[in-house]
Amino acid sequence: MKPKVDLSVYVITDRKLAAPRSVVEVVQAALRGGATVIQLREKEAPTREMVELGMALLRVTRPAGVPLIVNDRVDVALAIDADGVHVGQDDMPAALARKLIGPDKILGVSAETVEQALLAQRDGADYLGVGDVYGTPTKPDAGPPIGLEGLRRIVEAVDIPVVGIGGITPDNAAAVIEQSAVGVAVISAVFAAPDPEEATRRLRAAVEAGRQRASGERTL
Amino acid sequence: MKPKVDLSVYVITDRKLAAPRSVVEVVQAALRGGATVIQLREKEAPTREMVELGMALLRVTRPAGVPLIVNDRVDVALAIDADGVHVGQDDMPAALARKLIGPDKILGVSAETVEQALLAQRDGADYLGVGDVYGTPTKPDAGPPIGLEGLRRIVEAVDIPVVGIGGITPDNAAAVIEQSAVGVAVISAVFAAPDPEEATRRLRAAVEAGRQRASGERTL
Repeated sequence: MKPKVDLSVYVITDRKLAAPRSVVEVVQAALRGGATVIQLREKEAPTREMVELGMALLRVTRPAGVPLIVNDRVDVALAIDADGVHVGQDDMPAALARKLIGPDKILGVSAETVEQALLAQRDGADYLGVGDVYGTPTKPDAGPPIGLEGLRRIVEAVDIPVVGIGGITPDNAAAVIEQSAVGVAVISAVFAAPDPEEATRRLRAAVEAGRQRASGERTL
Repeated sequence: MKPKVDLSVYVITDRKLAAPRSVVEVVQAALRGGATVIQLREKEAPTREMVELGMALLRVTRPAGVPLIVNDRVDVALAIDADGVHVGQDDMPAALARKLIGPDKILGVSAETVEQALLAQRDGADYLGVGDVYGTPTKPDAGPPIGLEGLRRIVEAVDIPVVGIGGITPDNAAAVIEQSAVGVAVISAVFAAPDPEEATRRLRAAVEAGRQRASGERTL
């Protein structure tokens, strides 16, 4: 049975930004600060390191009741029995990923256009990571930002939940939620923060503020 | 049911060495020259490219009756229903790889020491890739060559078939077979060859010559 996932504050790992701290240490801080999803994303790591890091992360995410999702590597997700997989447009096609992980694991898909979003929904995605919203420092190969307008267009086009990604900080996170995104995904905002626990706490507060503003707007 | 595999001439892909030819073109030439196994090994390729290249390779290896084995990426192997997986010491641990691919797919493991070889055999390897035998140009991070003596020590220590790898050419392949290796694995010798078909044919002849010399020595 697939768990219902709280996508509010979705924290993605980066061992380079974590250094000299370990990835596990930063994730532990993020969990204390209220992260609701952890994604293991290490594009450059050898498979064995990813497997070992994934196993170490599960030992902290499972007790916290927070799902661990593996970026790109369906094999690593299966090997460690992670809670799900997230695939981008250069990764395993979503339909194949769904076939490999089965119906009960979480499948997330990156989309930057309405077409990609609708295809991912059709192919079995449980949620979408949509961006680059504001312009990201961590994916130098990304195209120009889609902005809040691009995000809103995709949210309105699909039935599955959308997480905004790309340059999101505690200061601009509320506006993402006001576009009816269910959450914010971040790398740098937590992994490059001197105090990742506090940074996550501020993101969570910003998500709450965004929700209250959005529901206020709807009530008026 | 796992097929019986002829490991005699085991050709590993390298799209950089293939250029300006395509990987599929070089593999087709190798198959005409008598390659008995093809391994898809593209450490730098995005997952989607590996999946697409793997599917394209299956369209030429299947009609030739030659197994296609995927290096490192169990997910890609599962996605394209390849014939097996080959894992190195930095890749998925062999026992986990075996669990993911099931009992009927081919599992190969790289080993450079007797300890690694015995562990791989215990963990479900069907064959070993052992080297670096002569010193390889394509894996700059490899340690010093283990030589023909190192190869022989491993062949004698295990019960599963061993393929030699590392700097093997048509001119030195016979000596590898004389150490009781069942085959030779090559990247450059075929992928960097101006005529990959002819290079493969010469490797195959060298393997045959090595077998005849080895059986002659045993008869004397």
